[in-house]
Amino acid sequence: MSRLNQAENFFDQNREKWLEEFFSFLKFETISAHKKSQNAMHSCVDWLKEEMEKGGLTVSEWDTISHPVLFGQNLEAGLDRPTLLIYNHYDVQPVDPLNLWESPPFEPTIRNGEIYARGASDDKGQCFYVLKALQAYRELFGTFPINIKLIIEGDEETGSEGLEGVLGKYKEDLKADAIAIVDLGITNIDQPSVTLGVRGIITMDLEVSGPQKDLHSGVEGGVIHNPIHALCDMLASIRDKEGRVQIPDFYSGVKPLSQEEAADLMLEFDHEAYEKIHGTGPHGGEKAFSPRERAWIRPTLEINGIFGGYQEDGFKTVIPAKAGAKISCRLVPGQDPEVISNRVQSYFENNAPEGIKVKVTPHPGRGHACKAEISSPIIQAASSAFTEVFKKKCRFILEGGSIPVVTELSKVTGGDVAFIGVGLPTDQIHAPNEHFGIERLKKGFCIITRMIDLYSNKEN
Amino acid sequence: MSRLNQAENFFDQNREKWLEEFFSFLKFETISAHKKSQNAMHSCVDWLKEEMEKGGLTVSEWDTISHPVLFGQNLEAGLDRPTLLIYNHYDVQPVDPLNLWESPPFEPTIRNGEIYARGASDDKGQCFYVLKALQAYRELFGTFPINIKLIIEGDEETGSEGLEGVLGKYKEDLKADAIAIVDLGITNIDQPSVTLGVRGIITMDLEVSGPQKDLHSGVEGGVIHNPIHALCDMLASIRDKEGRVQIPDFYSGVKPLSQEEAADLMLEFDHEAYEKIHGTGPHGGEKAFSPRERAWIRPTLEINGIFGGYQEDGFKTVIPAKAGAKISCRLVPGQDPEVISNRVQSYFENNAPEGIKVKVTPHPGRGHACKAEISSPIIQAASSAFTEVFKKKCRFILEGGSIPVVTELSKVTGGDVAFIGVGLPTDQIHAPNEHFGIERLKKGFCIITRMIDLYSNKEN
Repeated sequence: MSRLNQAENFFDQNREKWLEEFFSFLKFETISAHKKSQNAMHSCVDWLKEEMEKGGLTVSEWDTISHPVLFGQNLEAGLDRPTLLIYNHYDVQPVDPLNLWESPPFEPTIRNGEIYARGASDDKGQCFYVLKALQAYRELFGTFPINIKLIIEGDEETGSEGLEGVLGKYKEDLKADAIAIVDLGITNIDQPSVTLGVRGIITMDLEVSGPQKDLHSGVEGGVIHNPIHALCDMLASIRDKEGRVQIPDFYSGVKPLSQEEAADLMLEFDHEAYEKIHGTGPHGGEKAFSPRERAWIRPTLEINGIFGGYQEDGFKTVIPAKAGAKISCRLVPGQDPEVISNRVQSYFENNAPEGIKVKVTPHPGRGHACKAEISSPIIQAASSAFTEVFKKKCRFILEGGSIPVVTELSKVTGGDVAFIGVGLPTDQIHAPNEHFGIERLKKGFCIITRMIDLYSNKEN
Repeated sequence: MSRLNQAENFFDQNREKWLEEFFSFLKFETISAHKKSQNAMHSCVDWLKEEMEKGGLTVSEWDTISHPVLFGQNLEAGLDRPTLLIYNHYDVQPVDPLNLWESPPFEPTIRNGEIYARGASDDKGQCFYVLKALQAYRELFGTFPINIKLIIEGDEETGSEGLEGVLGKYKEDLKADAIAIVDLGITNIDQPSVTLGVRGIITMDLEVSGPQKDLHSGVEGGVIHNPIHALCDMLASIRDKEGRVQIPDFYSGVKPLSQEEAADLMLEFDHEAYEKIHGTGPHGGEKAFSPRERAWIRPTLEINGIFGGYQEDGFKTVIPAKAGAKISCRLVPGQDPEVISNRVQSYFENNAPEGIKVKVTPHPGRGHACKAEISSPIIQAASSAFTEVFKKKCRFILEGGSIPVVTELSKVTGGDVAFIGVGLPTDQIHAPNEHFGIERLKKGFCIITRMIDLYSNKEN
């Protein structure tokens, strides 16, 4: 019997027992955004420690400025073998609006083969199959062929400030040849895929100011330069008619997609499905690129907020003293966040219209893009595992969003990152009625057991 | 002794008694925006009725959907004589922030010859000298040489909905050959001026919408058309580099300033003083016109508010489903509010970017511009009165703001309008520490008495 079949059988044999254990994990109300979750967090940490130890890991609890980080490792494979670091998180999103839940968020319920509970998909479900895979691997196949490290944080949903604060302190523990971030998904249930990377991010506030005080638009309309006009002019000037950002050197260092990459990436795009979901087509961004390219391999500049003057019902004939906008850029490999932030800032400051002062305030928390090559051993191992388990050729995708803590983590560990998981866009993560399929729990479990072997071989 | 000297002497003789009476008027807490002002409003109305009757007027109290309008008339001059309608208001602005007042807003206090109280300038001071002028005229010179009508409303600070609602009902009472709106001012204490007109106004909401729900700017940045980008592009497209509004036919019917008008209007502009007040120069609007022309004889389009997406501290990487703006236009003679409103609406609706829906909602309460010719008898009478009293040649100005009720009033009465008064830009109207000079009370009083005679002669 193949090792995959052995894993599949093992899951089936333990299905009922493991579902009960999974339900125990789901019942901890580990909402990191809520102070009152403190006790639930601690109970959950104790439960996790035991599960990690059952998987053969030596476990440490790292204190942070927020919730504890759990770190476990098994280095029996020896110094000459590669090391794989797996990442999960045990905290979950808040549950409001509670009245939209069909069953209570912390009382797991199965309907049509799906487990409904907060965290079922993001990320307790994916954390649970990792734990079971480690336990099962040792029971089925004995000692791990590679060194295994597992980190489970408790602040992912609120920005990972706990983990970020201790990355430097524990950088020796975190050293690894590869990282698997098991917190992502596939685009649909029939198509296995591995995510090669995420985009970087910078964010900033833009403030324009004109007169010292708010003025009356009857008296001063057409006389003073209205800061809202100046703001709109500046923001409209960022893009040309083709949607290309006009900030000098914004695209410097951005690499085009190679033919090989283009062939392997799942670039096809279903316009009809997109219009159905959003009520409008993919009409933003650079016209010279396809929707997937725009989301995955091109940097963007988006206005995330704009404000100035009167915003309530009715009318007030004011010319405001100030107006402002919130601006973010998504970055791709080849772009340095600090350099791009300075270029955007200079563009606005150098293009202030007459009579208008411009102030740009970059926010902390910027992050580099993070992207692995398809040829990277961990990507090859992960995709082969997906192909085996789904019995269909795994494709490659990218994530348009950013996970700054992962970029930092990859720098500290020094390894390539594979973003994997069996979440689905329909799992309702961060929303009422979050759910996760039992069959996907099994697939995830099998993928992890297979990935350990495959990664071991690739690195041989 | 000239009739002006007689008036001046009469004021001096009655100065102490009248200041006491003026203080009684100022003590009524007639804030039209506050429901709790009801009793103060009624006491003030009773006080005013008596003062109007002392001036020889037959007084009616008109019920409205808001506060009462007082209407008084003296038609002894006879049907063959012209009729002058004078307008004031007895309501005042709210007083917050109260802690910035150096003396309580409803306890009038004199400092350096200025009376400090809410309403001292706007408009109780100007109403008071009108009342005293009518009373004094009859005592000094006997019967009025013209028919006099006086209307005093109680909702000016909240949009005049009381008066507007009864204009139709009382249109016969309101018929007049000329109207003097005694609620305005002069640009500085040494320079008499009469205001020839006000601009009209239209206001509207602009809403742009894209995706059905707010989206994540990592996932959809560069893919969906961000409604904030669309809004900025549309608003920036309104003006060319010369500040000229690009909406088709926006300027149709707008007349250039004739050489005669240009010579009479006080078009000179003190750039240094402007920069000192506002902290920035007059850098808005159409570059082809001077600041005064832009405020007085040119229509404008101003964005009074803009909003969309995240506006608080910190950051949220959202692409909002909707964004919007508040837009107003100031209109000049030759522009019809409804026609211009339709043109602006069509411009936005016809220029919706791909993937973006545009909705324009015009507000009610639009108003025509209102402007008298310099040759008009009431303008000539008023300016001659100002010249006599200030002993300096009166100049002509315009007002960039709008007073929609006055435009309606002028239509109902059928007469030319002169906007007059001795308010100053430094009076702090609508702000803490509003004040009005005793010497200006005297000047205003003398102007009204002289204007009655002068208007009578001009119309002879």
